[in-house]
Amino acid sequence: MSSNRIDVPVKYQKWWGWADEDAKPYEVGSKPKFPVFAQEKLGVDILAKELVTPRFEDLDVPASVLTDELRGRLVEVLGEKNLSTHDEIRVVHAYGKGVRDLVRVRRGQLERIPDVVVYPADEAEVEAVMAACLEADAVVIPYGGGSNIVAALEAEPGEKRQVVTVNMGRLNKVLEIDETAGLARIQAGTLGPDMEDQLNARGWTLGHFPDSFMWSTVGGWIATRSSGAQSDKYGDISEITRGLRMVMPAPRESGKSTQVLDLRPLPSYSSGPSVREMVLGSEGRLGIIAEAWMNVHKLAEVREIQAYFYPNYDAGLKAAEQISNSDATPMMVRVSDANETQFSMANGKKSSTMGHYVNQAMQKVMLAKGWNLADICISFVGYEGDATHVRYNKSIVNKIVKANGGMGVGKGPGTLFDQKKYDIPFIRDFLLNIGIPADVSETATPWSRVKEIHDETVKAAEKAFAETGHRGFIMCHVSHSYSSGACQYFTFAVADGSETSMDSYDHVKRAVQQSFMDHGGTVSHHHGVGEEHSPWMEQDISPAGVHVQRKLFEGVDPGRNLNPGKIVHDGTPGISSNSSDA
Amino acid sequence: MSSNRIDVPVKYQKWWGWADEDAKPYEVGSKPKFPVFAQEKLGVDILAKELVTPRFEDLDVPASVLTDELRGRLVEVLGEKNLSTHDEIRVVHAYGKGVRDLVRVRRGQLERIPDVVVYPADEAEVEAVMAACLEADAVVIPYGGGSNIVAALEAEPGEKRQVVTVNMGRLNKVLEIDETAGLARIQAGTLGPDMEDQLNARGWTLGHFPDSFMWSTVGGWIATRSSGAQSDKYGDISEITRGLRMVMPAPRESGKSTQVLDLRPLPSYSSGPSVREMVLGSEGRLGIIAEAWMNVHKLAEVREIQAYFYPNYDAGLKAAEQISNSDATPMMVRVSDANETQFSMANGKKSSTMGHYVNQAMQKVMLAKGWNLADICISFVGYEGDATHVRYNKSIVNKIVKANGGMGVGKGPGTLFDQKKYDIPFIRDFLLNIGIPADVSETATPWSRVKEIHDETVKAAEKAFAETGHRGFIMCHVSHSYSSGACQYFTFAVADGSETSMDSYDHVKRAVQQSFMDHGGTVSHHHGVGEEHSPWMEQDISPAGVHVQRKLFEGVDPGRNLNPGKIVHDGTPGISSNSSDA
Repeated sequence: MSSNRIDVPVKYQKWWGWADEDAKPYEVGSKPKFPVFAQEKLGVDILAKELVTPRFEDLDVPASVLTDELRGRLVEVLGEKNLSTHDEIRVVHAYGKGVRDLVRVRRGQLERIPDVVVYPADEAEVEAVMAACLEADAVVIPYGGGSNIVAALEAEPGEKRQVVTVNMGRLNKVLEIDETAGLARIQAGTLGPDMEDQLNARGWTLGHFPDSFMWSTVGGWIATRSSGAQSDKYGDISEITRGLRMVMPAPRESGKSTQVLDLRPLPSYSSGPSVREMVLGSEGRLGIIAEAWMNVHKLAEVREIQAYFYPNYDAGLKAAEQISNSDATPMMVRVSDANETQFSMANGKKSSTMGHYVNQAMQKVMLAKGWNLADICISFVGYEGDATHVRYNKSIVNKIVKANGGMGVGKGPGTLFDQKKYDIPFIRDFLLNIGIPADVSETATPWSRVKEIHDETVKAAEKAFAETGHRGFIMCHVSHSYSSGACQYFTFAVADGSETSMDSYDHVKRAVQQSFMDHGGTVSHHHGVGEEHSPWMEQDISPAGVHVQRKLFEGVDPGRNLNPGKIVHDGTPGISSNSSDA
Repeated sequence: MSSNRIDVPVKYQKWWGWADEDAKPYEVGSKPKFPVFAQEKLGVDILAKELVTPRFEDLDVPASVLTDELRGRLVEVLGEKNLSTHDEIRVVHAYGKGVRDLVRVRRGQLERIPDVVVYPADEAEVEAVMAACLEADAVVIPYGGGSNIVAALEAEPGEKRQVVTVNMGRLNKVLEIDETAGLARIQAGTLGPDMEDQLNARGWTLGHFPDSFMWSTVGGWIATRSSGAQSDKYGDISEITRGLRMVMPAPRESGKSTQVLDLRPLPSYSSGPSVREMVLGSEGRLGIIAEAWMNVHKLAEVREIQAYFYPNYDAGLKAAEQISNSDATPMMVRVSDANETQFSMANGKKSSTMGHYVNQAMQKVMLAKGWNLADICISFVGYEGDATHVRYNKSIVNKIVKANGGMGVGKGPGTLFDQKKYDIPFIRDFLLNIGIPADVSETATPWSRVKEIHDETVKAAEKAFAETGHRGFIMCHVSHSYSSGACQYFTFAVADGSETSMDSYDHVKRAVQQSFMDHGGTVSHHHGVGEEHSPWMEQDISPAGVHVQRKLFEGVDPGRNLNPGKIVHDGTPGISSNSSDA
């Protein structure tokens, strides 16, 4: 596979799915229960489907409209090697990795793909690239790991100007660690694994592990307000990010094209509206983040993930709420609903009736308790600290689990979960290969509405499945807990493998997002807005909130050169415009 | 005193100092050691000074320029009773309660005081008031408890338009509590004590206790990014504030004057640049906050403040840093430097040599350890939770204290500290009465620069004292701890009771603020920017950061009607313009 790879100065990515061709794909053969599960839930014989790897030769790639003048300026800054107008490279950077992105790219639906991809080496080159683009009135789109799933990496369909995608992958170093303050200065293009390797080597960790970890970067996390599996302890990226530098347009009156925002690392501050919190979540609309000072922590002495079962989701939610307001400070509290619990069991390698999580002995105990096995929910609670702290926290959690009718089942399932936590995109690629689009939506609500938004969203999705005329499946887990509420993370699939699959998918996606709005949720908890979620922004932060964001973008980027159309959309966003012609 | 009070629909405030005339002033007679301390440190015989209460009759109050037209519209909205052009009321609202404010008001230096003070009853009235003001092109300044110390409540000196101060004191209710989520919807004008009374009655607390607690409001805390004595546990106000409603100008194209920003309560979100974090710290420049959803907590079972002594400040800082990165989660970690430790001891009621904190027995122990009594530092660590949690946390802290050469001295001093924590403004009023201006400045830095910024700031202040030709005193404590750094809170006094006192004070204040900038600190940790700190904003958040804030303000308030001149200053800010004519 790698023999005909294009030579790029960053980590190679395949154009039609997650990761590169060397990554181990989902192996359905080793999961004897999954075909049965898929047959039951989606009515699809996944083993009968032929796996097709799309061929790049089948694509009709729009020609680059990069002018010789801009090209000349960019070559001057970067050198020939660090700029590419190669078709495959431009296609790789055309979209993120949402299911609609994958479908579009596989079908050759290439709209306004970048005219050139540039690979700057440092902040000075990023600034020179932006200056060249602003002076040429080109559009600038920053690109980290490319794993965005909310259509934040693509140019607007009707864009007439040149489109330059800035791949940040060469800015991939932990530049320094302030060991006293626990602050690391990290370049924005550093991918999760590369960053942890560099930090771990010196005994530190960022503690930020989103599902996209393998293919997402520090800058991307900041630009989307990311959150990770251990954020209950380490904080969302908005808390971890203490200072940063961002290349942005200069005020017109300055006579310069660009300037660098420099926010020094500060534990807290009272210096007016938070510019730091404007850059967080800005998705490229205010500038390109070059580096950031991130709060890092010494690797914990003990780390362990315990699994618990509850008779139903209600009990699991109640326990999560109580844990989040107890004296315990776990690093992770995850509760799967019954559907997700069954999905997890079906993905086990063993073929026992209930899978690798629940063995016969456990089943007996559950049945003796009067539990309905179709309703049971698995929960993972993660602990870190010294041995005393972990023991103390477990004792608090154990009491709460018990008070809510749950039972602990030890470390086994948690260890397995920990090993497999980055595999979900491969399952999605596999499903898409056999014609089942699947993706995720997450939302945060106060605890008082967590159950409501779960039940109503499942109901809305099921209604939407029925309306498409195809079978569908939706499952959910609590992924993050806060004192006042939680994030629930939904995964859904619709068994439409036909040409209308994106109509079906969009119909469900719209129902899910609208349910979030109708039941006190946010458009997104940590994936961002992009074009995908922009239609719901006025419902989320009110028209006045969108007005404030719009004025901010207009003020900072009066020429609309910086990733225009994201978050606050002036035209028709993708999710509605694409739904009928996909 | 209260016999000739003006009748106002909110809590009465005196015009020349903290609180009202009924509040118990600082009683120097009961503090036998304080005169000795003042003589030694400032060279002032404070008992020989005559206490003068300023007389309102001596003031020359500028006439109101409120037009009949705007007055008519405001009366229509509010009724005659809830609007005042009375001289004393306008003077009360002319300034905040910084030392420069108090000096100016006592000297009758009334620049551009409000033309009218209005008291709306609810959000609808706030909106109608703002609409009337915007249509009349008047300036609108929101006013909560009036305790601002960064010149955020005053109109710009040359302001030609009408100035309307909106006293929010009638919006003083906890409207509802979501007991499942731990969220309370609270009106912006609710003063600290009123709010805690309403919450406590139902078993809840906000856990937010700034030094200004008695005279500050929920809306004021949000508008300045406040922090309180227990924020290490409950979070700064930026974390506590989950949702809010703010009255603000509407986009011109809407044809309306005003709109209401509505941010629903959410534990976290990924919906673009955080509008919530733009309102936090906006100091009236984006709108008037009407109410907020605040994260509240059940009152803790156990609450206790333990005192510890360290041989010197270094040891105390090191311990605070280690505590903040340990498994312990105290609600407060406070460490006073040697100067502040001595000040505290001098403020005790007992007359023993070392005061109420360190008795003879303790002194013997300290001397036996080889400590220099002039260097010792007191530290308070607060604990909350159930009994087990408090015990567990104390055991972690005790180990850290011991490892840094410190010793615990029990609960006595902490209990006393807790009772007296809101008394500092009365000491300041007392000092000002005898001609010693004193005030506070706080800053946050990474742990790696905490000692540096402390020592260099003390040095800078001492140099500045010498340059004024007057004696001065500066002391400091760590007030808030974070994983990556801490806030240090400086109090300083300069013994210039002459006409040039504000020159002297400003000279010192400038030296302190510049030292913050030179040593990695922020202009303010929780008091805000106002006009006072705006000269340092470009050094703090870089010129690009100020540019971003400016564009935000211009976009949202193109007419510059909302508290113009604060945070981002277009003219000459107060601290420099007033220094030569005070």
